[in-house]
Amino acid sequence: MDDDLLITSAANPRLKALSGLRRRRDREESRTTLVEGYEELALALAAGVVPTELYVCPELFSPAGRAGSQDIGEQDELLARLRTLRVPVVRLSRSAFEKVAYREGADGLLGVVGAVGRPVHELPVGKKDLVLLAQGVEKPGNLGAMLRTADAAGVDAVVAADPLTDWGNPNVVRASKGTVFATPVGAGTTQETLDWLHANGIRLVVTTPETSTEHTDISYKGRVAVAVGSEKHGVDDALLAAADERIRIPMAGRVNSLNVSVAAAVVLYEAVRQRR
Amino acid sequence: MDDDLLITSAANPRLKALSGLRRRRDREESRTTLVEGYEELALALAAGVVPTELYVCPELFSPAGRAGSQDIGEQDELLARLRTLRVPVVRLSRSAFEKVAYREGADGLLGVVGAVGRPVHELPVGKKDLVLLAQGVEKPGNLGAMLRTADAAGVDAVVAADPLTDWGNPNVVRASKGTVFATPVGAGTTQETLDWLHANGIRLVVTTPETSTEHTDISYKGRVAVAVGSEKHGVDDALLAAADERIRIPMAGRVNSLNVSVAAAVVLYEAVRQRR
Repeated sequence: MDDDLLITSAANPRLKALSGLRRRRDREESRTTLVEGYEELALALAAGVVPTELYVCPELFSPAGRAGSQDIGEQDELLARLRTLRVPVVRLSRSAFEKVAYREGADGLLGVVGAVGRPVHELPVGKKDLVLLAQGVEKPGNLGAMLRTADAAGVDAVVAADPLTDWGNPNVVRASKGTVFATPVGAGTTQETLDWLHANGIRLVVTTPETSTEHTDISYKGRVAVAVGSEKHGVDDALLAAADERIRIPMAGRVNSLNVSVAAAVVLYEAVRQRR
Repeated sequence: MDDDLLITSAANPRLKALSGLRRRRDREESRTTLVEGYEELALALAAGVVPTELYVCPELFSPAGRAGSQDIGEQDELLARLRTLRVPVVRLSRSAFEKVAYREGADGLLGVVGAVGRPVHELPVGKKDLVLLAQGVEKPGNLGAMLRTADAAGVDAVVAADPLTDWGNPNVVRASKGTVFATPVGAGTTQETLDWLHANGIRLVVTTPETSTEHTDISYKGRVAVAVGSEKHGVDDALLAAADERIRIPMAGRVNSLNVSVAAAVVLYEAVRQRR
């Protein structure tokens, strides 16, 4: 609309600050992150996460599939809702938007939201919670994929212990398809995570090749956390030592590793099967 | 060794032909494909797939972790074995190798192998085979991830029906970590695939949101194929109509889709659980 700030120069300093949010340091200092894409922003909003700023490129944005419409903000429900919530909207030219967009196939929407995730000890705990614990996972795509699975499996919280990637990493947000806003996510050191599990009486089930117990051999009833480790090294000795149960996924083939997000899915859905 | 052909110019026409194998058309015309990386070539060889040519960049290759050794082919078991099998070896300078390498973190080994996969009706069928059927899957990363899972789950064959990606796509080979050579893979139209299933008495289980039967509600004993569909559209009507059983994976969350390779893993491991 006419009142929106309009930026047409890709050299505008505000855009530089936005691009900076791709760096973990900038995200941590500002306690904000970027969310790109209609679906992701809609999921964030549905989870109560309201952007502090919204950047729209009318040329790329197509509400209800009407590409190139200039009449943004009126005909689209999401934009209308954000305006009602008094989210400041900045309109960007295509070249300006492309400077800050981080994904291919940009749809012309980019929001700034507050920090994603909380310290592990601030996570809410319910009576029979199912928790996914990912230790030292490195690739944003894997963390995002695990969040999609956690959302589908009805996991109550996902904890990143000693994470190499922060939850606010735009590639985690993207790979999660926005589910990073739907499931409570926390982070902490491995020791903080173990303290939290202990304080809340959450049983720890650790996946490791170093056991003969298969993932289908144990019970997942009650409060239980399923732990997977890093892509390269699996879980560390501290987590292994603290495990109430150690499990392995049977592998019949020549290659001795499943993708970590696939492994998490296989165990979580066995838990779902038992907990129905 | 001194007898190896040596190419130092990135403009060498032989390299151009090699790069061409990244294109599906070139792969299909030559009935060959590229396999890059030590692990992948070792798995291929273990499965009886001998490269017709091997390209080595001594500067990048580090047998047994000894980076930069020039004495290739003697101290390394894989290279020695390939030499015994009389595989022609071409040495490449770093710039020449980088012209043909297709992945980051290249380890200095690239092989040319015969076409990967066979027509679906040529796949071997055992008494109690477990088959994974992927219809219309588009992303090489997803096909590769499914192959890793299929290998681990002891799947007997993987069929790509109406595939948008060929099995020889170097990105499939890479994402599969070489398991594309360990598990028999086939391809065909959906009709050819259905004919093959029917001719061999293989029961067809199709994943779809359009059913209330959950994936844990049915039996996976005997000859059975588990079908997943494309990333965007799932399985098509023809496959759905031919299904002996339709199943869904229960989803508790806000986002109504699991990644296709995750979905395949969840169902295949339920089959593994039941078939033990």
